Amino acid sequence: MKIITAMAVASAATLFSPRGAAAEAAGPQVVRFMLQNGMDCLVIPDHRAPVVTHMVWYRVGSADEEPGKSGLAHFLEHLMFKGTEKNPSGHFSKILASLGGQENAFTGNDYTAYFQRVTRDHLEQVMSFEADRMTGLVLNDKVVNSERDVVLEERRMRTDNSPAAQLGEAMQATLFVNHPYGRPVIGWEQEIKKLNREEALAFYRRYYAPNNALLVVAGDVTPDEVKTLAEKIYGPIPRNDAIHPRTRPSEPEAMADRRVVLADTRVAQPSLTRNYLAPSYRTAETGEAEAIDVLAHVLGTGSLSRLYRKLVIEKKIAASAGAWYGGVAYDTTRIGISATPLPGVALEDLDRAVDGVISEIVENGITQEELARAKTKLVADVVYSWDDPFTLARMYGAALTTGLTIETIQKWPDRIRAVTADEVQKAAKKWLASRHFVTGYLVKPPAPPEKRS
Amino acid sequence: MKIITAMAVASAATLFSPRGAAAEAAGPQVVRFMLQNGMDCLVIPDHRAPVVTHMVWYRVGSADEEPGKSGLAHFLEHLMFKGTEKNPSGHFSKILASLGGQENAFTGNDYTAYFQRVTRDHLEQVMSFEADRMTGLVLNDKVVNSERDVVLEERRMRTDNSPAAQLGEAMQATLFVNHPYGRPVIGWEQEIKKLNREEALAFYRRYYAPNNALLVVAGDVTPDEVKTLAEKIYGPIPRNDAIHPRTRPSEPEAMADRRVVLADTRVAQPSLTRNYLAPSYRTAETGEAEAIDVLAHVLGTGSLSRLYRKLVIEKKIAASAGAWYGGVAYDTTRIGISATPLPGVALEDLDRAVDGVISEIVENGITQEELARAKTKLVADVVYSWDDPFTLARMYGAALTTGLTIETIQKWPDRIRAVTADEVQKAAKKWLASRHFVTGYLVKPPAPPEKRS
Repeated sequence: MKIITAMAVASAATLFSPRGAAAEAAGPQVVRFMLQNGMDCLVIPDHRAPVVTHMVWYRVGSADEEPGKSGLAHFLEHLMFKGTEKNPSGHFSKILASLGGQENAFTGNDYTAYFQRVTRDHLEQVMSFEADRMTGLVLNDKVVNSERDVVLEERRMRTDNSPAAQLGEAMQATLFVNHPYGRPVIGWEQEIKKLNREEALAFYRRYYAPNNALLVVAGDVTPDEVKTLAEKIYGPIPRNDAIHPRTRPSEPEAMADRRVVLADTRVAQPSLTRNYLAPSYRTAETGEAEAIDVLAHVLGTGSLSRLYRKLVIEKKIAASAGAWYGGVAYDTTRIGISATPLPGVALEDLDRAVDGVISEIVENGITQEELARAKTKLVADVVYSWDDPFTLARMYGAALTTGLTIETIQKWPDRIRAVTADEVQKAAKKWLASRHFVTGYLVKPPAPPEKRS
Repeated sequence: MKIITAMAVASAATLFSPRGAAAEAAGPQVVRFMLQNGMDCLVIPDHRAPVVTHMVWYRVGSADEEPGKSGLAHFLEHLMFKGTEKNPSGHFSKILASLGGQENAFTGNDYTAYFQRVTRDHLEQVMSFEADRMTGLVLNDKVVNSERDVVLEERRMRTDNSPAAQLGEAMQATLFVNHPYGRPVIGWEQEIKKLNREEALAFYRRYYAPNNALLVVAGDVTPDEVKTLAEKIYGPIPRNDAIHPRTRPSEPEAMADRRVVLADTRVAQPSLTRNYLAPSYRTAETGEAEAIDVLAHVLGTGSLSRLYRKLVIEKKIAASAGAWYGGVAYDTTRIGISATPLPGVALEDLDRAVDGVISEIVENGITQEELARAKTKLVADVVYSWDDPFTLARMYGAALTTGLTIETIQKWPDRIRAVTADEVQKAAKKWLASRHFVTGYLVKPPAPPEKRS
């Protein structure tokens, strides 16, 4: 079975951004209710096709791991496919495949989620399966040891084989020196190697419980149907009273500029990346995150963006340039900027040109035209997401497990429309003129240093 | 009362290095024994003056704090002067002052230590006091809150008022991305602010116990006298069976070069610092740490060192240049290099020149003359330490609480003498040609960036 893993901040970044989506009050209607055992439930009806997406999200991710045990949340996600007494390993996947269904899972900094897509008549079956493995996971050392090798290979493929991914890890670790977002979701290799059955089960028992879970069902169902089924199937699972809201260490004030350089012969295209510390939708002041979304759009989305116009079109020093904002995160998150130089252009020069573009916004703000265009595009992009219950389910799941509300999502278009140019400039001043950033250079190794004697 | 705090890696760095000391078999004789309750005891007799140094070291430091509670070990060190039922706050200090005695304490990454220096007839009295506060600490919120302000002020004075200290913190956090040595001993400001009475007491109860302590008595005493007193005074304190050997997260392999730049108008003298990850005496392979000590000496101790000769004398680009090795640490530690440029010299140029000096050793090794000179000096410096029981006590305390043995210390001169030029070159190749380092630039802020349009 294939397991995908979404690296959290990166995946969260797409949720409210142009490639992702958000729902408007006029958009999809959702119904939320809670079971007696504390299980949070959300239904997103969509009757255009007789298909349902069933997801269970746990409010636990890599940022909840203990120091020294990085990768445990993701490792457990893999192990969750290893069977229970009732459904031994492979049993359910076989049934699901025979029904033409799909299943998968992903782990982020703040959540771990499991999902299936089936025709509507099989909803009860997948629910029963998910309920069974919420508490019934059975693991033996052989299975655990072999799955650890799978994860190590996954790490080698994703990170160690990719200079860009290695640089990303180093930048993340350098930007977040105190908060656990500094470590990779997949874990550090030397720590993955030491993960074992006991630790996986302890983590499972601590965090997997109905009162730490969010059920999302999207598609050809009614809220009443889902409620009846959820009460019957998830209702009997006892709550875990040891579950508390998450508190994680915060970042110290940054005093120094940080730069990370990764030189690797495999680098085909050098690039420059900046990551700035920024508040998430949960931690930001009212309207601030929306202003940052507009800022990132004006700065770096599309060929009319500041970065593209200045670096690619006017100065002709970059082949590409962009910006993004990872607003959906439980704690303080990132604004990212990246650019690739044209041949012969030094990263230092590109770096200074990026500073120039940022300074221009910090000092003079954005135009009304840019503001209007960004808002229109951000809101318009949302509409596309309404067409796909799976995207919607994923968006609501990520939002609700990172401390947001349905209202945050539904009023997001209105709040984007309310952003002013002043607020955008204020956000630029506060977050892009701060010292709390890291710059990454991805380069080919220089020629060996000349000897000095 | 004044409390000093030794920042651990920095203070450990001096222990085996020229400014510090180590003892030779022909040097001071020490006697070590263990009480029934697991308290480790070391006596260093020295009868030249009727004075004793009495120290209790706990095998707990800032690297043992939980994430989000940085500064707790050091905060508790302060609070340990706030009194017990038997000895209310200030009581003992007054008595000690009236006897002409001294007392103080210090916290490092790996240990927290308390000491008194008194005439020999008062040893029992200070022992009784220290034994009393090992378990009898009494704290109320008022005292705790006011002491927290003292610590915050200490942080402001030491770190926030010093660009060099700020850079040091940022470099430490950037070098150690996973291991708790990445956080400052004094703690991050935002976390110090949240420390409270309950947390301090929980930390105290968890780590302060005879079987987590090392008693060091140096001076005008015999081992028998100390044993009798220790059994009488410390012996009755019950052991804490919840104390286990420390295991801390290790560092991932470094793939990217990291640079930290601190620009501050208060910088009078720009400087360049490099910190390389390196094994400590406890974690190194046999003979490796000794080879690094020789390497650091050849590279950067004194006016005959490579760095000084090349940068200060030959190239005339630096006002000073040096290197050190912080070998006494429980976990992986650092080799440091620093240099200050002459006016008009760019740090980038100094940086490249430092690379040149390192490459020269990595590629061609050191000369027999350099090797012999380093060994002679390193061993000779040790002799000076024999003269000071306090220095000896501190050296043994740091060594034994970071996992070293008496033999490591006593055979150190012999092991230094056994280091070969090949081993030094091998150490340079392994640790100074690695990617696991961070470079720090301390600079005045540049003129405001020119506007690009």
